[in-house]
Amino acid sequence: MLQDIHKKLDELYPEMVDIRRYLHQYPELSFQETKTAQYITDFYEDLGIPYQKNVGGNGVIATLKGGNPGKKVALRADFDALPIQDEKDVPYKSKIDGVMHACGHDGHTAQLLMLAKTMKMFQDDLPGTIVFLHQHAEEYAPGGAKPIVESGVLDDVDAVFGTHLWATTPFGVLQTSKDVFMAGPDRFEITIQGQGGHGGYPHQTKDAITIGSQVVTQLQQIVSRQLDPLETAVITIGQFEAGNAFNIIADKARLVGTVRYLKQTVQEQVMNEMEKIIQGVCIAHDASYSFHYEKGYPPLVNNAKEAEVVLEAAQEVDGLQTAEEVKPVMAGEDFAYYTMEKPGAFFFTGAQKEGHHYPHHHPKFDIEERAMPIAAKTLITAYFKYQEK
Amino acid sequence: MLQDIHKKLDELYPEMVDIRRYLHQYPELSFQETKTAQYITDFYEDLGIPYQKNVGGNGVIATLKGGNPGKKVALRADFDALPIQDEKDVPYKSKIDGVMHACGHDGHTAQLLMLAKTMKMFQDDLPGTIVFLHQHAEEYAPGGAKPIVESGVLDDVDAVFGTHLWATTPFGVLQTSKDVFMAGPDRFEITIQGQGGHGGYPHQTKDAITIGSQVVTQLQQIVSRQLDPLETAVITIGQFEAGNAFNIIADKARLVGTVRYLKQTVQEQVMNEMEKIIQGVCIAHDASYSFHYEKGYPPLVNNAKEAEVVLEAAQEVDGLQTAEEVKPVMAGEDFAYYTMEKPGAFFFTGAQKEGHHYPHHHPKFDIEERAMPIAAKTLITAYFKYQEK
Amino acid sequence: MLQDIHKKLDELYPEMVDIRRYLHQYPELSFQETKTAQYITDFYEDLGIPYQKNVGGNGVIATLKGGNPGKKVALRADFDALPIQDEKDVPYKSKIDGVMHACGHDGHTAQLLMLAKTMKMFQDDLPGTIVFLHQHAEEYAPGGAKPIVESGVLDDVDAVFGTHLWATTPFGVLQTSKDVFMAGPDRFEITIQGQGGHGGYPHQTKDAITIGSQVVTQLQQIVSRQLDPLETAVITIGQFEAGNAFNIIADKARLVGTVRYLKQTVQEQVMNEMEKIIQGVCIAHDASYSFHYEKGYPPLVNNAKEAEVVLEAAQEVDGLQTAEEVKPVMAGEDFAYYTMEKPGAFFFTGAQKEGHHYPHHHPKFDIEERAMPIAAKTLITAYFKYQEK
Amino acid sequence: MLQDIHKKLDELYPEMVDIRRYLHQYPELSFQETKTAQYITDFYEDLGIPYQKNVGGNGVIATLKGGNPGKKVALRADFDALPIQDEKDVPYKSKIDGVMHACGHDGHTAQLLMLAKTMKMFQDDLPGTIVFLHQHAEEYAPGGAKPIVESGVLDDVDAVFGTHLWATTPFGVLQTSKDVFMAGPDRFEITIQGQGGHGGYPHQTKDAITIGSQVVTQLQQIVSRQLDPLETAVITIGQFEAGNAFNIIADKARLVGTVRYLKQTVQEQVMNEMEKIIQGVCIAHDASYSFHYEKGYPPLVNNAKEAEVVLEAAQEVDGLQTAEEVKPVMAGEDFAYYTMEKPGAFFFTGAQKEGHHYPHHHPKFDIEERAMPIAAKTLITAYFKYQEK
Repeated sequence: MLQDIHKKLDELYPEMVDIRRYLHQYPELSFQETKTAQYITDFYEDLGIPYQKNVGGNGVIATLKGGNPGKKVALRADFDALPIQDEKDVPYKSKIDGVMHACGHDGHTAQLLMLAKTMKMFQDDLPGTIVFLHQHAEEYAPGGAKPIVESGVLDDVDAVFGTHLWATTPFGVLQTSKDVFMAGPDRFEITIQGQGGHGGYPHQTKDAITIGSQVVTQLQQIVSRQLDPLETAVITIGQFEAGNAFNIIADKARLVGTVRYLKQTVQEQVMNEMEKIIQGVCIAHDASYSFHYEKGYPPLVNNAKEAEVVLEAAQEVDGLQTAEEVKPVMAGEDFAYYTMEKPGAFFFTGAQKEGHHYPHHHPKFDIEERAMPIAAKTLITAYFKYQEK
Repeated sequence: MLQDIHKKLDELYPEMVDIRRYLHQYPELSFQETKTAQYITDFYEDLGIPYQKNVGGNGVIATLKGGNPGKKVALRADFDALPIQDEKDVPYKSKIDGVMHACGHDGHTAQLLMLAKTMKMFQDDLPGTIVFLHQHAEEYAPGGAKPIVESGVLDDVDAVFGTHLWATTPFGVLQTSKDVFMAGPDRFEITIQGQGGHGGYPHQTKDAITIGSQVVTQLQQIVSRQLDPLETAVITIGQFEAGNAFNIIADKARLVGTVRYLKQTVQEQVMNEMEKIIQGVCIAHDASYSFHYEKGYPPLVNNAKEAEVVLEAAQEVDGLQTAEEVKPVMAGEDFAYYTMEKPGAFFFTGAQKEGHHYPHHHPKFDIEERAMPIAAKTLITAYFKYQEK
Repeated sequence: MLQDIHKKLDELYPEMVDIRRYLHQYPELSFQETKTAQYITDFYEDLGIPYQKNVGGNGVIATLKGGNPGKKVALRADFDALPIQDEKDVPYKSKIDGVMHACGHDGHTAQLLMLAKTMKMFQDDLPGTIVFLHQHAEEYAPGGAKPIVESGVLDDVDAVFGTHLWATTPFGVLQTSKDVFMAGPDRFEITIQGQGGHGGYPHQTKDAITIGSQVVTQLQQIVSRQLDPLETAVITIGQFEAGNAFNIIADKARLVGTVRYLKQTVQEQVMNEMEKIIQGVCIAHDASYSFHYEKGYPPLVNNAKEAEVVLEAAQEVDGLQTAEEVKPVMAGEDFAYYTMEKPGAFFFTGAQKEGHHYPHHHPKFDIEERAMPIAAKTLITAYFKYQEK
Repeated sequence: MLQDIHKKLDELYPEMVDIRRYLHQYPELSFQETKTAQYITDFYEDLGIPYQKNVGGNGVIATLKGGNPGKKVALRADFDALPIQDEKDVPYKSKIDGVMHACGHDGHTAQLLMLAKTMKMFQDDLPGTIVFLHQHAEEYAPGGAKPIVESGVLDDVDAVFGTHLWATTPFGVLQTSKDVFMAGPDRFEITIQGQGGHGGYPHQTKDAITIGSQVVTQLQQIVSRQLDPLETAVITIGQFEAGNAFNIIADKARLVGTVRYLKQTVQEQVMNEMEKIIQGVCIAHDASYSFHYEKGYPPLVNNAKEAEVVLEAAQEVDGLQTAEEVKPVMAGEDFAYYTMEKPGAFFFTGAQKEGHHYPHHHPKFDIEERAMPIAAKTLITAYFKYQEK
């Protein structure tokens, strides 16, 4: 049956491309993706697969119960876009000003819809139940996955699989991990409040720029000295903004950045030690500060068994030359919430377009569309493999 | 005669105020002050005192040759304004959007014109020659003083005196110095060019913010360790701008600041050591940089003898309770070019308005107008004293 | 047969303890351990097992060819001691002033000798060939393992196993890894050459202490920013020595430290970036430097298959409650050279003495002697398991 | 009379040299200079000038009342030596191991004794009263000047003059100041208490070296940013001591240094801000600290009038080509206590030996002995000039 399914997915490739390109032209920002949700529900309506809408927000969940007994497995695709101006020169360029599918979620949706259409044809012989999980708002914390989990719709699911079309992984390559696969990405904002004044009279001021620079310098010691060298964390200050004039001492410095980590204990340690360093430097120089730390998604931890299923499935998918275990990727994914609740695995489907090297979130980002059927085939093959475990 | 002159100046006080308030309403930016220059030449035209216009730019120089022999002495007033929006609530508020006499140059001009009017009356008995030196463009380097000096109009002058109505010095106080009186104020701009990238992958980047912070930190050692502790320098970084997103490592950091110094050798040392530090930090972290250092006005160095003349003159001016020698002020003045060429002295005439504490260049800056006749009296008294030396 | 061997080893426990305590009283420093080598050769002489002495220095290799065909496997024990004064209060305390078996190599030797004695009894039925590899000079780079490998005596060996009695691992626990097990430990020495002088005249000097402090501070960025966050490195400055008087500026600062790493590419990166930072800071402050980097042992990388053999073997050893895979340990071992040449695995045999928590290299270090027969049993069991692979 | 006195001093030059060389061979450390004190009292005993001994410790004060009325003026010479090993190769080299007159106090004493001998001859015609003030313990805080002042022996003195034979000022030059002449030299000791440990496990420690380096780096900001740029301070860390082994993280760092300042308010500011910075850095990195700050002598402030007297006196001393006002010297002197109580002035008598450039406190330090009579002549000439003021 699996071979027939793969064959059917190949036949549906033109429609898959059409859907993806349609969605690409009409992207919607996280939490505002109502039209896309409507598009998805219309699709399931037409297919005759029962669905729930407004799950945890704009989420849509369609359930295909097979003719044979078996496990209930969710296959997830996200569908929100980003606040980026599309700069590609293609017919399917975004028609929405300042909004763009610069992360491939259009492709995720297209392949899952075509997979649903395919599986509807094989429903009678299907073992178990497929849950087509269309998630909104992956790009913007607190994300859509959490409320979907909290809605309870996954309570009776046995496992969850998902993939990301990954533009920096070569086409034909699948990547996953049996443990932590993606990092926890947090955001912080430090404001140093000193006291401004005349550039020639530093002693009458508290120079926010020298103090801020000390904060940046000392924060390095968290990773270099305070963290277990066998653990992983990144503390990046992405913005340093202070002062408006060359000859006036700045009263305030704003440091905004991100923390990446793979374990919650590391996250806690970094938070605590950041605050201690900021506090200490401010005491040293008689300044005050505010420190806002916004926790993003938790690290995405795959289950070893489910990751093994994916790797095995990959062996049976034409077009996948390589299926490899990789080190964690320092980006985040709210798929993390699914594997915190249920067994599951997430993987990257290589989607690098030939001669095209724009990373995710780039204004010229695009994907190799032939990766879409590969994603669909891998997901459904993993589904079948999982039934046997 | 001096007493009569002082008396006359008191009589002219209302006109002095009118002129000052008129100029206050029609301020002009440095190098664009053509209407003000016209106002001044019209005034001398009416008075019948010969003048030259367009001296070194918009400068105006009027010459009053006395009936008696004596020295030729220039008295200087500057007349340009600043790119600041007037926020005072007074009838004479600036009528020009975004331009304001926020430094008192309107008052400088008003008192010098009234002094000219007065001295015209005493011309026959006057010993020596007064040069009324109305200078444009003091606020913006390279300034008006340098081209005026270069024009040669001061070649046969024996000395130059000038004053600044000083809003942070109490009314009734005169301040000057027998040596360095005001600092050299330079401007610099450092650009650190690193390499940007994903916030979770610092090793693929050269983080301009950590490198820039190191530059800020290490620059401190010039003043703390490399400068003779008995010399004076300030290195202020007034702006630190880097990065646009919390999760993207900045490729570039822009540090803009000012150096203040009192001696040219110190200026040279600071420039050289700044470059060495920037270069060293960039080598340490594999970044590149640009370093632009714009020399501003030189330090203003008074001549001891002429400063003594001012201090003596102050004894004879009603309304001046105190005449004191003070430490150098860390602001700059292009009067510096005059004392580099000719003997001379510059002084502050206390002009703090009661209950009003806005510093120079503040949108609510204002002066105590009664300081204007004091300035005029001190200048002319110094002129007479100088004739006797 | 294995059970009989284990039983025999238990019977030999008292002799094992005697040998260990004898060696403990007569420790010898690395490369000077001639008496210990003589003790070992005498032992094999008495046993009638053929041996080679002076292998790669003071190494001794004894070869027991079994009555049955099979693989040739080396079992390694090191036998040098440390320049530490024994501060224990026990009858078997070191009799050699300033030298001490503070790392357990006496125990390694004792258990391997008793294993040889045992296996001599089972020679006829033994499959394969056991190489008893007694290595000198593990404690002091360049170590004894490298010349032993270079001597060629292991050329026809199929695999190498070894263990360390580990005083910070609980008795009854075995630890190993299927990949990198121990770090590469390098040593470096940085000398900053500034220019000394009077404490009140910093501008006449180049202050080696402020420059050295900048080096320390900036070196942090290698780990925090320049290293892949998923890789591991430690840069520790263990000594900072500069200056002799409170009121004289130091001309020289000496920074001595260690680098720990798990991969050669990381070692190369750290070396290069250290030099770049030192150079950059010295350029920034006009100082000069020397940088000596001494590479120590490479990281010890176990082979997955041989590590698996050890873990399986551990299941059959009475007294081992736990056999676990662990993260790399940041100490070094020249066993690394063996697994660079031949398949092999190294493991820790938990030897923490009850109520005794002194770490390796401590003047009061001691081991739980009952760990010795466990080490011997695990080694020989692994030997048998390996024959079957 | 003054000319006769000068002539007499020239005649006594050989005896002056003998005394100086004798004292040079028998130097005594601060507070232990009993034999030198005895030598001095014996001298006055022989001369028949009344004296007091054990003044404020080992001090000796001899009083010569002139035959004519006039002011009472103290002339001070100090007589202690330093804990330095004499490395000169001269017949008068120190005979006391590890003790040396490496600062010229032997010469101070010799010239003052010869001046006393001379003035005894002119006693009848002398106006006023000369107090020959031989002070012990100048080299070691809290010094001898303070207890001498507290003893009350100077209560009825009108003024105090003193000089230092200064080996870095050319022979023939006199230097003084009308205001602050020498700095306040304080000593401090900072101990950072972190937590030591294995060089590969920084996260289990609090690395005293990285923390100490941050302290050094941040302390720079006191001078560069927190101090009025027109004031003077030096913060020198002369010693940084931490750690004993390359591979063990140091638990403790000891930073010892000196502060130099010219005003008490600056001293207070520096002390406070140092503590704040040390505290802040320790909070940032979870370490503790101790901070001991030992105040040394206050800055030596000359009185303008008495300094003027010295400069005038210098005009009348043969052999003095130049008498100049100089900037403050960053070394300290407990002569400071005298001018805190009484009008007075201190000056340097240039004593640089030709072709000999060892600074004060150097093991090869020596003085140009011909500077001794110049010192004596200047002191007595100032004495006479002062009588007339």
